[in-house]
Amino acid sequence: MNYTLREICTITGGTLVGDGDTRITGVASLEGARQGDITFVKGEEFIEKALKTRASALVVHREIKEFKSAPSLRSRAGLGGQIVVKDPFLAFVKILEVFSQERGKRHRGIHPPTLVAKTATIGREVSIGAYSVIEEGAVIGDRATLYPMVYIGHNTKVGEDTLIYPMVSIREEVSIGKRVIIHSGTTIGGDGFGYLQVEGRHVKIPQVGTIEIGDDVEIGCNVTIARATLDKTVIARGVKIDNHSHIAHNVIIGEDTMLIAYAKIAGGAVIGKNVMIAEDVGITDHATIGDNCVIGGGSNVYKSLPPGSVVWGSPAKPIMEEKRLQVLLRKLPKMWETLKRFGNLR
Amino acid sequence: MNYTLREICTITGGTLVGDGDTRITGVASLEGARQGDITFVKGEEFIEKALKTRASALVVHREIKEFKSAPSLRSRAGLGGQIVVKDPFLAFVKILEVFSQERGKRHRGIHPPTLVAKTATIGREVSIGAYSVIEEGAVIGDRATLYPMVYIGHNTKVGEDTLIYPMVSIREEVSIGKRVIIHSGTTIGGDGFGYLQVEGRHVKIPQVGTIEIGDDVEIGCNVTIARATLDKTVIARGVKIDNHSHIAHNVIIGEDTMLIAYAKIAGGAVIGKNVMIAEDVGITDHATIGDNCVIGGGSNVYKSLPPGSVVWGSPAKPIMEEKRLQVLLRKLPKMWETLKRFGNLR
Amino acid sequence: MNYTLREICTITGGTLVGDGDTRITGVASLEGARQGDITFVKGEEFIEKALKTRASALVVHREIKEFKSAPSLRSRAGLGGQIVVKDPFLAFVKILEVFSQERGKRHRGIHPPTLVAKTATIGREVSIGAYSVIEEGAVIGDRATLYPMVYIGHNTKVGEDTLIYPMVSIREEVSIGKRVIIHSGTTIGGDGFGYLQVEGRHVKIPQVGTIEIGDDVEIGCNVTIARATLDKTVIARGVKIDNHSHIAHNVIIGEDTMLIAYAKIAGGAVIGKNVMIAEDVGITDHATIGDNCVIGGGSNVYKSLPPGSVVWGSPAKPIMEEKRLQVLLRKLPKMWETLKRFGNLR
Repeated sequence: MNYTLREICTITGGTLVGDGDTRITGVASLEGARQGDITFVKGEEFIEKALKTRASALVVHREIKEFKSAPSLRSRAGLGGQIVVKDPFLAFVKILEVFSQERGKRHRGIHPPTLVAKTATIGREVSIGAYSVIEEGAVIGDRATLYPMVYIGHNTKVGEDTLIYPMVSIREEVSIGKRVIIHSGTTIGGDGFGYLQVEGRHVKIPQVGTIEIGDDVEIGCNVTIARATLDKTVIARGVKIDNHSHIAHNVIIGEDTMLIAYAKIAGGAVIGKNVMIAEDVGITDHATIGDNCVIGGGSNVYKSLPPGSVVWGSPAKPIMEEKRLQVLLRKLPKMWETLKRFGNLR
Repeated sequence: MNYTLREICTITGGTLVGDGDTRITGVASLEGARQGDITFVKGEEFIEKALKTRASALVVHREIKEFKSAPSLRSRAGLGGQIVVKDPFLAFVKILEVFSQERGKRHRGIHPPTLVAKTATIGREVSIGAYSVIEEGAVIGDRATLYPMVYIGHNTKVGEDTLIYPMVSIREEVSIGKRVIIHSGTTIGGDGFGYLQVEGRHVKIPQVGTIEIGDDVEIGCNVTIARATLDKTVIARGVKIDNHSHIAHNVIIGEDTMLIAYAKIAGGAVIGKNVMIAEDVGITDHATIGDNCVIGGGSNVYKSLPPGSVVWGSPAKPIMEEKRLQVLLRKLPKMWETLKRFGNLR
Repeated sequence: MNYTLREICTITGGTLVGDGDTRITGVASLEGARQGDITFVKGEEFIEKALKTRASALVVHREIKEFKSAPSLRSRAGLGGQIVVKDPFLAFVKILEVFSQERGKRHRGIHPPTLVAKTATIGREVSIGAYSVIEEGAVIGDRATLYPMVYIGHNTKVGEDTLIYPMVSIREEVSIGKRVIIHSGTTIGGDGFGYLQVEGRHVKIPQVGTIEIGDDVEIGCNVTIARATLDKTVIARGVKIDNHSHIAHNVIIGEDTMLIAYAKIAGGAVIGKNVMIAEDVGITDHATIGDNCVIGGGSNVYKSLPPGSVVWGSPAKPIMEEKRLQVLLRKLPKMWETLKRFGNLR
């Protein structure tokens, strides 16, 4: 990264205060910033912290004039300039986007030691990393980026501008949308876990369905998404799935729903739009979770929830009930002692 | 997939009703089926749903004559014929087996960009995918299928007809049975987690034992099975392990036991035959779980269980006790209010 | 493995009793040992078990003379000799170290089918396995061992003597210390899970920070360590992380801290030195956990803990309180029955 502050100001659409020629070579937090870094000030309550930063530039909601009135601060900070914008964090995220796109750029083209089947269709300006395998009938959309060691199964489709990191396995007949991001260690299209009990043994039910993943989905590291037994497992547009999550066969997840780490969604569950599922939540098979539900961390949801439910606990309960129970639980010793005086309790 | 209904009827051993020349090109559920698909009717209660299917053929427990008496239904459904059998789901699973075997067929032989060590022994009709590595002394049984990017360590044995999906790593000296299925992202033979505390530091105990996996085992995606510290970690015949599970060093799991997703089996635990372990269950180190136990979802088992135990909760309790406690827990506010009237409680 | 007992005795610094020419070809537990194996006796309470072992040699805290006085035992055991040391287990671990180093030895050099970028720096006596990729600017320290199918991203540094098993992905700009061990299926440097809510959609916050992993860290299988949003995620010297754990963006973990399987450390949490985190523990974002804390299995820690805290439960409480609550919980039915007699309860 190597920009002038003036160039960066253009990205944000903000107002430049100070020296536009200041060289910006990195991004950091207020505390972590060093010479050459740009950082941001979230609001008035961070001004004091900002006066101590060693960053070369700030994105801020108002000009910090305190630097001028205290030259000792100014020189200590080595501050070159400020970019004044309405929403400093949003503007900073725009800078991060430019920075990360530049850093993440990969050679276009298919890197020589790669196995692309003859009947695979590869779009324009695609990048495929070393030791990747694209099986027969697969389709890779324009401008898609596959890092090294990615496996794309028979007839699987990867949409335009999709980004797949190293060591992702996507089995046959799966459909992945546009602008999807899939992180390392994730496996998509493994068999659902389904058996028939026949004379005391578990007989495998072949899992011949598929998976459909919508546009703008992001899937973290070491996530598993199982193919459907029949028909489809569906992850709709804009869903975000964090590390170590498990989406079982025939699950349907609605648009813009968010699943924090270790989401455990059992077979056939149907989850609405814009649901927020906190970390380490289990949802039982075939449950229906309505739109806009919020499910607290560590919850186990054993039955369906109407839209807009806010639940917590194991089993999940309305959040106010769960909070009340947690308070009362800690009063159990008092309750016990009191009862012993009345009853014949041991 | 492209069969006549007559051919499919032969697979099931059922009775054909209707047009045996109907082309069958896919399988689906009653709701998901389209022209060309075959589906199944689980029982009398699904007849009404069946009348609305768009499938071209049905596997069913009795002939559905309603199609004839209602020609409008018939034409709407485009139904070509029915296969009448005693157990429609079991017959349908047989069809799925044929369908999935055909779809999963891979070229026999070792695909050129593969590294097979000179001292490795490769059976007949084996299929090894691109960028796989078979180390010195490894043995791959007849008709085994290794997808691309599979790692087989020194002296590891893979049994006949075993199927290993992409991005599976099996380290040295491990023994895998016949007809085993191992899904993507799974790692077998990593070191057990064992340290000695010496002067405030953790000194690694080298993990030099191995792993023995029996015939007909299936292991899901992103599962970890640790090698023993000494001796063996054992997974007996017929065990089924779901995604994200963790089998620690020196664990022994008996025949036909089933572990749903996120089973966390700590070091040295001994689990009997035909145990059913629901999702997200923890079993403490060195616990002994008797044959035929059933452990409810989300349980933590902190001590050994006699055969046939049915437990739930954290810590795990007899299931009826846990259910009673969950009911009473929700009465805590009432209990508290009542007690406040008697005692001097806050 | 093929040593004389005399050679092995030298490793331990113990006293040899019996036949120093006894051939030792393996290591095992007392119960698992067979002819040719050496095993160990943990203390006086294992002497009886030791008399029944089939091992060829023992590491023991005192000479077991009972073998002499009972020739039938002696011949049954086939025992060749004993090594007498003060701490048999510690001495045995030294033997395991020699044994495992010998078994784990890999060819030095870069194995032909490997992709090493021109600007990567490869140290002396490095071993890089087949189908590994080392990107531009990466640095691999002297004597480091990379198994096959390892991905090292741009500018990532791997320290001296570090050992990386197959199918590990380490993305760009990460720094890994010396003598680190990383097991299969682990992904380091995936993006942290961070989004801005803009007009009802989740806009990705680019994750441009990095990760610093200290010396002597060991990381199990299928672990994920996320890169920082800004600045660094830090794993200090000597930390040990078990399988399936998740270290989110900007987490800091102090020296010698231990995380058992499925540790779930949320974004920005700061964990002290020498903390013991048992299996399946969740720690909330931005919590501070003091040095020397102990957190029981299955706990969820929703707030910061002062140094030396010993907690358990969900939410985590002082361990004695949690144990008391668990006892009282099982008395809820009695409490309910008693209260019903007094109050007007249903």
